[in-house]
Amino acid sequence: MTVTVENPLLTALSETLPPGSVLTGEAELDLHTRDSAPFSEAGRPAAVVCPDTVEQVQHVIRTARAYGVPVVPQGARTGLAGAANAVDGCVVLSMVRMNRVLEIDTANRLVRCEPGVVTADLAAAVAERGLCYPPDPASWETCTIGGNIATGAGGLCCVKYGVTADYVLGLTVVLADGEVLRVGRRTVKGVAGYDLTRLFVGSEGTLGVIVEATLALRPPQPPAVALLAQFPSASDAGDAVAAIIREGHIPSALELMDRTTTEAVAALGHPLLAGHAAATLIVASDAPDAAEQVRAMAALCRSAKALSVSAAADERESKEVLEARRMVLPALGARAAALSGDVTAFIEDVAVPRAALATLIDRIELIADEYDLYISTVGHAGDGNLHPTVIFDRSDPDAVRRAKEAYDAIMAAGLELGGTITGEHGVGVLKRDWLARELPPRNLRLQRDVKRLLDPEGLLNPGKVLA
Amino acid sequence: MTVTVENPLLTALSETLPPGSVLTGEAELDLHTRDSAPFSEAGRPAAVVCPDTVEQVQHVIRTARAYGVPVVPQGARTGLAGAANAVDGCVVLSMVRMNRVLEIDTANRLVRCEPGVVTADLAAAVAERGLCYPPDPASWETCTIGGNIATGAGGLCCVKYGVTADYVLGLTVVLADGEVLRVGRRTVKGVAGYDLTRLFVGSEGTLGVIVEATLALRPPQPPAVALLAQFPSASDAGDAVAAIIREGHIPSALELMDRTTTEAVAALGHPLLAGHAAATLIVASDAPDAAEQVRAMAALCRSAKALSVSAAADERESKEVLEARRMVLPALGARAAALSGDVTAFIEDVAVPRAALATLIDRIELIADEYDLYISTVGHAGDGNLHPTVIFDRSDPDAVRRAKEAYDAIMAAGLELGGTITGEHGVGVLKRDWLARELPPRNLRLQRDVKRLLDPEGLLNPGKVLA
Repeated sequence: MTVTVENPLLTALSETLPPGSVLTGEAELDLHTRDSAPFSEAGRPAAVVCPDTVEQVQHVIRTARAYGVPVVPQGARTGLAGAANAVDGCVVLSMVRMNRVLEIDTANRLVRCEPGVVTADLAAAVAERGLCYPPDPASWETCTIGGNIATGAGGLCCVKYGVTADYVLGLTVVLADGEVLRVGRRTVKGVAGYDLTRLFVGSEGTLGVIVEATLALRPPQPPAVALLAQFPSASDAGDAVAAIIREGHIPSALELMDRTTTEAVAALGHPLLAGHAAATLIVASDAPDAAEQVRAMAALCRSAKALSVSAAADERESKEVLEARRMVLPALGARAAALSGDVTAFIEDVAVPRAALATLIDRIELIADEYDLYISTVGHAGDGNLHPTVIFDRSDPDAVRRAKEAYDAIMAAGLELGGTITGEHGVGVLKRDWLARELPPRNLRLQRDVKRLLDPEGLLNPGKVLA
Repeated sequence: MTVTVENPLLTALSETLPPGSVLTGEAELDLHTRDSAPFSEAGRPAAVVCPDTVEQVQHVIRTARAYGVPVVPQGARTGLAGAANAVDGCVVLSMVRMNRVLEIDTANRLVRCEPGVVTADLAAAVAERGLCYPPDPASWETCTIGGNIATGAGGLCCVKYGVTADYVLGLTVVLADGEVLRVGRRTVKGVAGYDLTRLFVGSEGTLGVIVEATLALRPPQPPAVALLAQFPSASDAGDAVAAIIREGHIPSALELMDRTTTEAVAALGHPLLAGHAAATLIVASDAPDAAEQVRAMAALCRSAKALSVSAAADERESKEVLEARRMVLPALGARAAALSGDVTAFIEDVAVPRAALATLIDRIELIADEYDLYISTVGHAGDGNLHPTVIFDRSDPDAVRRAKEAYDAIMAAGLELGGTITGEHGVGVLKRDWLARELPPRNLRLQRDVKRLLDPEGLLNPGKVLA
């Protein structure tokens, strides 16, 4: 590859880094311009640098700083908030080559790895040693651990197993001044000093660049037993969720599809799923008494006026039930393919206290009507975390306007119901203005103070999290 | 009560606060000088103020700041690191009157409360509503939630249910400038902005004063089935712990007593406990298949060369097994009572990666021999968290010297084994010099920067966490 050196920064980077580390080709720059969030502001990088070592990361950050150039860290760019979007003239720091699993410590149930490891690869590596890394964001087959940590990613299993943040024991971070910071520990418990580890989780590369992580692991998850229940209204499904929680069940998944999503999946064809229901719940248990738990939760669904309840009798039937949830993305893809124009899916992420779930679903249906939009909502019902997805033609300016307004209306509804503008996708550029509406002024001021403390020159992923 | 006004600060405080809020009597000042950590540096407060509202807390902090006087927050003073110790001339801010449970939200499984609520009272209040607040520090019957959060307290249940930090969803904090800061959320998940909540957990009142907490709750814990196993060596007990973890069991308690503790409990008399064993494990399960899990864990103990294994057959027998763990404090009390002089117990807290547990126990035995001390070690074996307790005559200067040296030697051993100087008791004044030995210089610098950011004048609990 020929590196076209256009400015002294690129010369400085290229002279020191191994050949092939600094990419400046148009195609590479295009590719690394943005993550997977539509509508999000993005600039054009001056170069993409792919470091292979911590020292190279330090070199890139120090060099960029010397030239006053921003640095934007990227993983697999599967994020949905624009947190990995380039800014004009920046150096994109792509962490994907630092993808080694450094250590699997089975006795202490932990793994140490570089940030570029793909989540599924990490899960497979620890599974080979008889352990489990539970967090399972939807993009887990392609996203990276560094991105998961930087965005505070969630997933389906959170209702029982928690979010990415809950697994981060320690981090190595390269700071804005190029120095290496180690935070956290290798022990299960520890309270030595302020918890700086959590400060970096979810900070979207704005406080430092994660170059190594120590993550807690769990014993393997037993196979899950699942049930599928369909309801005449979102409110009835909400009642079933409330009853499951109230009775003390801790399902390993508790997923909800609204009317639109149910129709879309039914259109693809699933033996257990009728298209006419207003809401579908998919519930799984991997407890030692899973079959019994599922029977009890099925009874609670029936009491909540379920139109139908299919409780799996064995592992094969459970897989069939869970397949309905996996069909959501293909079903929305089919829906999009049937439309004309430049069809785009805009995936939202809002979380409310569990009890407000049904109200939020009803509000989203009203918003879809009001803005004349196709909005399919799926969600991690057990966590009160919904993902309304707007599918629309982005070549139609009016559809774009309506999609953006609907998006704002959904976030406003989430906040009004005591929720948050983001349950697991992060703030990025997409929601930074909304952050100021969610957080009280004093909190926001402290957020800014923390940013200034760690990145006084504002060169680390500028414009993300905070406007 | 007559308030003796000695200085303008006290006048300012007394004039504004309700009668009875400002205490300056000698007995009150004595009582509020220190927490439960022996050997820890403590000064004499100018006054003890017991606010009843957030506004009163703000008033106290603003008034103290106007006079340049430090403020030291206190809960029930059960802490073991001197984090609540007064400094000379300070205002002690005793939070015990702010002890209301403000809201129990069963649908969303959370509780909102003031910091002065006693942990056991909170647990009882939520239990009445069919919910559970699991964290169970040893002092749970007298300690306060605010203190638990400020110290990052742990307990016996952590091996399955996590530490206090894992339950803190949101906090209201009065900052050094008297402003009110709200951090966190009411939703299960949320990634809106930097995680400031965790920054305050474990910060020992040095960054702000917690005036309200929103805590996650769980379904009630089923009754536990327990087993007691005794071993010919700490290493064999360590092997049993390792096997239990390796086989993927998640016990609800996994406690270890060393040789000295076993002898002390046996001396009080317990039907299942022989005094001659080098180590005793007490293991419990509250899983749906608890009896089966306990049988499997009992078999693992036998394979690890246990001298004896008593697996409970029912709830009554389980209570008998768990009683052995509860007898540790009375047994050490009996031991102390049998000695002459001003006998004191010095409870240490060190955590190592689980695999290093047996090595640490052996090292502590060697340290006890080397310094000619009585050291009884109990610990949360599942978390690698040990509490060696030195019992000695504090009127004997040589015993004091040896106890202090042994304490240092134990922390050095913990660090050498890849551990931390504190698993759950915190840093306080007792371990602030050791914090600098555990944390890398860049981390320590950032710790100081965070303190300076939130308390630029250094008036909030000065000298704690950081020297």
